[in-house]
Amino acid sequence: STSSSSGSVAKLASDASKVVCRGPGLSKAVVGQKNTFSVDCGKAGTNMLMVGVHGPRTPCEEVYVKHVGNRLYNVTYTVREKGNYMVIVKWGDDTVPGSPFHVTVP
Amino acid sequence: STSSSSGSVAKLASDASKVVCRGPGLSKAVVGQKNTFSVDCGKAGTNMLMVGVHGPRTPCEEVYVKHVGNRLYNVTYTVREKGNYMVIVKWGDDTVPGSPFHVTVP
Repeated sequence: STSSSSGSVAKLASDASKVVCRGPGLSKAVVGQKNTFSVDCGKAGTNMLMVGVHGPRTPCEEVYVKHVGNRLYNVTYTVREKGNYMVIVKWGDDTVPGSPFHVTVP
Repeated sequence: STSSSSGSVAKLASDASKVVCRGPGLSKAVVGQKNTFSVDCGKAGTNMLMVGVHGPRTPCEEVYVKHVGNRLYNVTYTVREKGNYMVIVKWGDDTVPGSPFHVTVP
């Protein structure tokens, strides 16, 4: 499907269903360490990557999104407390396959 | 208004209209430097901050979102090319006041 976003970038072709997320940080994370995953938007057209992470009570301490080229992104995040987290990945207004990801912090 | 998001965190009260964004990085940015702004969600209830930055042709090089406490976030981003950028800030599924921000990179 193509994006029906109201954002300006949505005029360009975008297909969130082609985004591929991979990595350990999509299922498990550790307090005080850098938890990572990658988001490959190379076949998903032009849009804006949005990543959000939230814990059981408090927000994620930090989220770092780095574009490493050809619309491949590395995401690193750190958390302060144990529990069940949710990671949401969107390509513009559209949720990508697998999102929301449910992450356990044991 | 309250969020009608389908995300799990949206069950909790959320009001994106109470989010306040401030800082130079919302209007102007410089290639190769750290461009910053803050997002104060302290009065906006519980939700997940989502930040996206996109340039005229390529994605933003990196976006770093740090929670500094009480739902106050500092955002730092770097860009590689000049032109007109768009910064989108969302509180869950809802756009916050002022977003999208149009940023010039001279």
